[in-house]
Formats: sequence, C-alpha cells, structure tokens
Amino acid sequence: MAEPAVRVVGESLKDFCSQVFGGMGLSTEDADTAADVLVSADARGIPSHGVARLPRYVRGLEIGLMRRDAEPEVLRETATSLLVDGHGGMGAPVSAFTMARVVEKAKVCGAAFGCVRDSNHFGIAGYYAMMALKSDLIGIAMTNTAALGVPTFGRVPMVGTNPIAFAAPADREGAFVLDMATTVVTRGKVEVYGRSDKSLPEGWAVGAEGASASDPAEVLHNLTYQVGGGILPLGGLGETLGGHKGFGLSVLVDILCGVLSGSAVGADISDEPGSSARVSHFFGAIRISSFRDPVSFRSDMDAMLSSLRSSPPAEGATRVYFAGLKERESEERCRVAGVPIAQNVYDRLLRIATDRDVPPPEVVL
Amino acid sequence: MAEPAVRVVGESLKDFCSQVFGGMGLSTEDADTAADVLVSADARGIPSHGVARLPRYVRGLEIGLMRRDAEPEVLRETATSLLVDGHGGMGAPVSAFTMARVVEKAKVCGAAFGCVRDSNHFGIAGYYAMMALKSDLIGIAMTNTAALGVPTFGRVPMVGTNPIAFAAPADREGAFVLDMATTVVTRGKVEVYGRSDKSLPEGWAVGAEGASASDPAEVLHNLTYQVGGGILPLGGLGETLGGHKGFGLSVLVDILCGVLSGSAVGADISDEPGSSARVSHFFGAIRISSFRDPVSFRSDMDAMLSSLRSSPPAEGATRVYFAGLKERESEERCRVAGVPIAQNVYDRLLRIATDRDVPPPEVVL
Repeated sequence: MAEPAVRVVGESLKDFCSQVFGGMGLSTEDADTAADVLVSADARGIPSHGVARLPRYVRGLEIGLMRRDAEPEVLRETATSLLVDGHGGMGAPVSAFTMARVVEKAKVCGAAFGCVRDSNHFGIAGYYAMMALKSDLIGIAMTNTAALGVPTFGRVPMVGTNPIAFAAPADREGAFVLDMATTVVTRGKVEVYGRSDKSLPEGWAVGAEGASASDPAEVLHNLTYQVGGGILPLGGLGETLGGHKGFGLSVLVDILCGVLSGSAVGADISDEPGSSARVSHFFGAIRISSFRDPVSFRSDMDAMLSSLRSSPPAEGATRVYFAGLKERESEERCRVAGVPIAQNVYDRLLRIATDRDVPPPEVVL
Repeated sequence: MAEPAVRVVGESLKDFCSQVFGGMGLSTEDADTAADVLVSADARGIPSHGVARLPRYVRGLEIGLMRRDAEPEVLRETATSLLVDGHGGMGAPVSAFTMARVVEKAKVCGAAFGCVRDSNHFGIAGYYAMMALKSDLIGIAMTNTAALGVPTFGRVPMVGTNPIAFAAPADREGAFVLDMATTVVTRGKVEVYGRSDKSLPEGWAVGAEGASASDPAEVLHNLTYQVGGGILPLGGLGETLGGHKGFGLSVLVDILCGVLSGSAVGADISDEPGSSARVSHFFGAIRISSFRDPVSFRSDMDAMLSSLRSSPPAEGATRVYFAGLKERESEERCRVAGVPIAQNVYDRLLRIATDRDVPPPEVVL
C-alpha cells in the first residue's frame, strides 16, 4: 500500500461497517454479510475491494442505486440449481444467500449452480468460492461487470473485468484460492498509475483506434466518455501473448452470469446514475467425496501446493506463490497486527461515523 | 499452414485413421472415436492436434505406451459424477465414453462431472466440451499434461499446458467454443519458431535461471533434458501482465484433473518411454433448462456473439472473432474443399497406409 496506513482491529472494523449498513435499513444478517465481505478484502490484501468502497456503498443506498429493502427472490429451482433475482439490492447479501444454497445442494446432490440477476457489486469473488471449503466442496464464483475490456483485434469495450474465483481445500496449506479479473488489470490499477503519473506497461490498454495506449489519463477519459479504447484482456494486445484467451474467458463469464440468468451482458451493462448496476453472478460447488475421500484429497492438495511454493525461484525473485497464499499470509498478519487501512480511507470512515452516529472502528495501538 | 498442403476428403481421412486403429486391435467404436477427434482438429484448423499425431499414436500403440485392449473402468459413480480409470489406453475413446455419461447424467440431474485417470493424450479438449451442445448443455473439458510450464517467479516446469475447453450453444452463430492452453503457448508453437529460426517473443519462455529466453532451440533443449526453464503461463513473465493468473489456471486444471481423480500432477507427470502418459482429464456439463428456456438462451447467445464479431476492429485489423468462430469457419471450408494436410504429414500417412495395408485417404482433385 503506497499511502500511509492506519491499522484497525478487524472485528471492530466489521462491526462498524455492519452498524453503518444496519442504520441504513439492512437486516442485521445482510449488514453483517456486507461488512464481512468488505473487511475480508482488506484483510486478504485487496484494498481496492475493501472498506474503501464503503462511502460508495453508503451513497448508493442513499440515492437508491442499491435498494435497501430488496429481498432475494428464487425464480427457478431444482435439486442442483437456483436462479435468484436480486431486485437491485446490495450484491454481497444476495450472493452469500445464493452460494449458501448452492453449497447445501451440492452437499446433497454432488454438484450445484446458482445464478443471480439484477444485482450490484459483490466485492471479492473469492469470498463466495471460499464458502464451499469448510464443507469439502470445490467452490466457484463469477460476476460480470460494466464493459471496459476491449476484444482482441477490437477497439471498443465489449466485456467487463469479469472475475473468476475458484477455491479448493487443503489442510496445512490452507486452500488454493484463485480470484482473477479476466482483463489484464482492473480499472483501479490504471487509476493508480494515473495518480502517480506513470506510463502504462505495453499490453494493458488500447486507445480509441485500438492501438497500444500508455497514458492512463487518456485511457480513463476514453472509458468514462465511451469514445472507444479500454483495457486489454489477460494476454494483452493481439494473439501473440494469448489475448484471445483472456477475451474468451471474459465472454465465458458473461455467458454463465448474464446469458444463463437472462440478463444484460457486455456493453449493455453500464453504471448509469439512477439504476442499479444490473450485473449478474454465477456460483457453483462440486462435492469432493463424489470422486474420492476428502481427507486424501486435502492431503494431496498439501503435497502439490507445498511443492509449488517450494519450487526454486527465478534469479532475482525470492518466492514462488500459489494462488491464495499471499492472501492467506496477509490474513494471518492482520489477525495479529490489525487490518491496514489507507489514511485517506480511514478519514472517510471517520466522517461516516460522525454523520451516522456510529462508534468509529478501533485502531491498533 | 506454412508448408504446402494436400486437401483430403474429410470422411475418407476419418475412415483411413479408423481402419489404422482398428487394424491395431481397437474396437470399431473406439477406432472411429479416435479418428474423429484427430480429423476434427484438422478440420477446425488445429493441425498440431490432428492426423499429424497419427504416426505417434501408431507407435505408442505398437510399443505399449498406449494399451490397445484397455477398457474404461468406472471406479466410483453417483447421479452427478463419475470416476473412470482409463487403464493406460488411448485418451480419446475413454474421454468420449466419460463425457457421454456426463451428458446423460446432466440431462437428468442438471449438472454432472467426470474424471478420468491413467489416460493418454486426448486430442483437442474442445471436442468433448462440444459433445454437450446438442443436448442444450454447457460443456467443459480439461486435461493435465507433462510439465513444461514454469510458475510465476519460478524457474523449473511445474505445470503442463493444461488446456481448458468450454462450449455453450447458440443458433445462427453456432456455438461459443473456448479451447485454450493455460500456458501462453504450447511446445508445438515453440518448435515452429525453432524450425524457422525465429526468436521467441518476450513473454513466451524462460531459461534455466528463470529469466526471459528467446532462443527456441535452447528452450526445447532445456525442456527435453529437464535442466530448468520452460514455457510461461498465459500472461507471461512475472505479474505485470497477469502471469500469475495463467499459472493459477494451470493449477486449477491440475486440481480438477489430477488431485480430484487421485492421480499425478505437475512435475510428476512425464512422458517416459515404457509407460503411459498417466495424464488425467476432467469433464463437466450444466443443463441450461435448469435456469431458463434453452431457446431463449440460444437466441441471447446469438445476439451476444453477433455483437462481438460485428464490433469495430482496431486500426489495421480486419475482424473481431469470438472463441470458436475461426474454427467453425474452417470446418465449413473443409466440408466443401477438403481438409488441408501438410505435404510431409500426408507423406507419412501414405507410409502408414502401405505398412498397414490400408487404402490411403482420398485427395480432393
């Protein structure tokens, strides 16, 4: 984290967020869930999806972008599936609701999937995939987002950052938790470069004509005013480094989230004032015991993950990480030393505390 | 295709391959399947996985790398799952057997998954994912392979090219079919550069110390003699362009294929003389009607895919492709004009025809 950070007691930060949401009319359970997802992101070292978003969520609830009284409605259900309408409420509660149902179904049937339509930003995808772990299930979570990703050989944004999360349990090694945008980077990363006046690396973005762009301000301007250009798929420009694969993965997410739930996809999703984001999500769980004893599975996961992280590093590198290892180590640090919150974010939390008459989160001294 | 090509009648090429396999002791059904997978690859414009592999398969069957008399054995089965032992036989027949069972289960239960252990090279992953399409299912297929992919920040191969295939049906637009190695390129691509004495693009491979490598001969030598170095994950070197994401996807494939089936993963898979490749596969199917009317789904797929391919191309580019479009157009061309086979590959087929007393495939005049 570049900016100076305040270290906050995790539980206290959760309580704070939950009280803010509760004060705005969310049920205790929904408020707790929304708070837990935000604080988990900070604890896992993903501050872009953490409490830095609280002001935006508060504002969204205030002006009705996210409906405070939305109740998830199950539109269609089988033993292995679930289609849920979020009715424009917050993304986290309806997502946790749906993934919990998917987990219960997969425990009984071996595999289950759920789609959520008419939802909003759901935070880190990995949170929901990880809900499967304690039941010895493999967990999957995806969401589509407003379009900012430009197709391979294209020039206008047609897909979102469309993250994919996948979690599988281990023992000693914790778990394998992949949580990745299918664009090469997210808009937040481009904004960080913009704030520090750095040129974008080749392969991150294209300008309005579809050629490489290195000026973050130009890329962000083009995205905001929809004049063409945007962020490239994982794999970068053209096909040389596999940009068509990243683009394919983005479309895969749009199919499972958007088309399967009968919702908007790609360029039809946009964050317009006055309406919800209308994004959709996809959740899945696969029961390990259908294939083998989960104890042996976890033990083999330990062996594989341990061999990956102890494989020799490249010259100049210090360590090899498997997906989820950095995040787990960050969580462990935060449990002891508190959750780091950028000073400017913390200041905004204090203003919310004053405005809403909620006790501020406790700082680690 | 760089080399001059012979155009061969598709059906005749299939018959030829099938007769060769049949003559080696495979059942008619298995021989037909193995032939169909090979010829489909050529027809879809993926000659690296097509009949160019026939000599290798013939040799593998001759020396017992692939067992001719292997019968798939179902080790574990539930309404939504299937674990199959391939007993070291050819990859294609046991894969088609397993995916067919997965499809039947998903039609009844809404979702199903199958693992195959102790198998061999199964050809193009997309072939099996596409088996789901005609039943209005979403299809998934993956395989692990011998390790040649180097982890992000690592220096020795720890994962295979581990492809992921995903297919979803449309109407007018055919289908969305993603079939991608999770390494930035396959070994075959590096060999092509080696034969034409071209330097590898930055981001494809690393040398024994884990630093960028551009000499294809050196990279191939290092892989063969296992002295370190190899091919990079999708996203290239380090984390700047998302290499850790591609690496994560490779491990995901090893988890679903290898760990879930209780088989070897990563560096423990190697093509040694005298044994099968001992690779494992993963197949899945999700029923669209669990979520919505498949007719509406396909119609929305048409709308999305058509908007993607008609989105404006970058300056200097001519078209935007969605995954599977190039392959479908190639299939259509081949139906009319025959399947292009490189001259040197065709010559090898003719030798096999003579050696095994099988009529050679018919050339398009």
